[in-house]
Amino acid sequence: MQMLKEAILRQGRAINQDVLLVDTFLNHQVDVALMKAVGEEFAKHFGGRGFTRVVTIESSGIAPASFTALALGLPLVIMKKQTSRILTGDLLHTQVRSFTKGTSYELTVKRDFLQPGENVLLIDDFLASGEAAFGVLNLAQQAGAKVGGIGIVIEKAFQMGHQRLEELGYDVYSLARVKSMSEKGIEFL
Amino acid sequence: MQMLKEAILRQGRAINQDVLLVDTFLNHQVDVALMKAVGEEFAKHFGGRGFTRVVTIESSGIAPASFTALALGLPLVIMKKQTSRILTGDLLHTQVRSFTKGTSYELTVKRDFLQPGENVLLIDDFLASGEAAFGVLNLAQQAGAKVGGIGIVIEKAFQMGHQRLEELGYDVYSLARVKSMSEKGIEFL
Repeated sequence: MQMLKEAILRQGRAINQDVLLVDTFLNHQVDVALMKAVGEEFAKHFGGRGFTRVVTIESSGIAPASFTALALGLPLVIMKKQTSRILTGDLLHTQVRSFTKGTSYELTVKRDFLQPGENVLLIDDFLASGEAAFGVLNLAQQAGAKVGGIGIVIEKAFQMGHQRLEELGYDVYSLARVKSMSEKGIEFL
Repeated sequence: MQMLKEAILRQGRAINQDVLLVDTFLNHQVDVALMKAVGEEFAKHFGGRGFTRVVTIESSGIAPASFTALALGLPLVIMKKQTSRILTGDLLHTQVRSFTKGTSYELTVKRDFLQPGENVLLIDDFLASGEAAFGVLNLAQQAGAKVGGIGIVIEKAFQMGHQRLEELGYDVYSLARVKSMSEKGIEFL
């Protein structure tokens, strides 16, 4: 997606070979007009496949996933990283380990919002090793639901997430696939 | 806002006199069409006042604030509750205590996204005692910026937040003001 790649080249900054800072338009400040275009691009790619809900992981996926859900006419479900008093009732949990951050967190969703037989579209801001996506796949499996598509805003294509997910048969659609990055610059696949 | 009040009456559930569960359309599952209408209503009320950015607090404010920012043609800034590797550079911090939850957290924003002389619009999902809003006011004060308006999706009008903010001269616009709630029902002001 050209508009997104231009934003990454113009505003993104590779702090090192692993961390890409895109906080001016994606995950701290948000360019909502760009996120609307991102959502419409996902809807164009994934439309007409019988999805029942869009799901994302709090919190940087929420803006692009909101516009995707709107363009597809579907509800959005936010998988929660933090416990909260609103998380009541019958809950599904899974542990997600972040290899890049060296931390782990518990991902939670209410069973009401991920039901048996559903076909959901996962939208997230980044894909690296794929641990967050595998967490959502685990929750869907517990629920008896299917993840029928995975839309990613920025993929670190030098990590294994995309390949691991495709080998399991998932349709992964990334709008910008970063081949390599360093202080010298960013290259796309 | 009629459409929102109807959603609250139809889908909301007062667990007790203090906790209103609206997880089917606002903070776990999100009705994005309703959030778009919410954003357009905020834009109608707050438009033409020279705002430079929309700000919100992660994570339940992000969806309504995204649609508000889009309708106003402004960037959105997400004040962060969690530390992260993307939070680098010159940061502003403040401590927010949640009286209802009995917890506290640190709210952080990069100084680049809240600059001296700016006039920002705060959008959040809930207003109760106003602690989160006061946290944003504190960050704005540190930055030398002004919070020129506060838009709230659901207000617990039986708590003091609205009054405290208005007494300080802030324009608080809440789309649904809950006067009282219990297992028996929800009443609006």
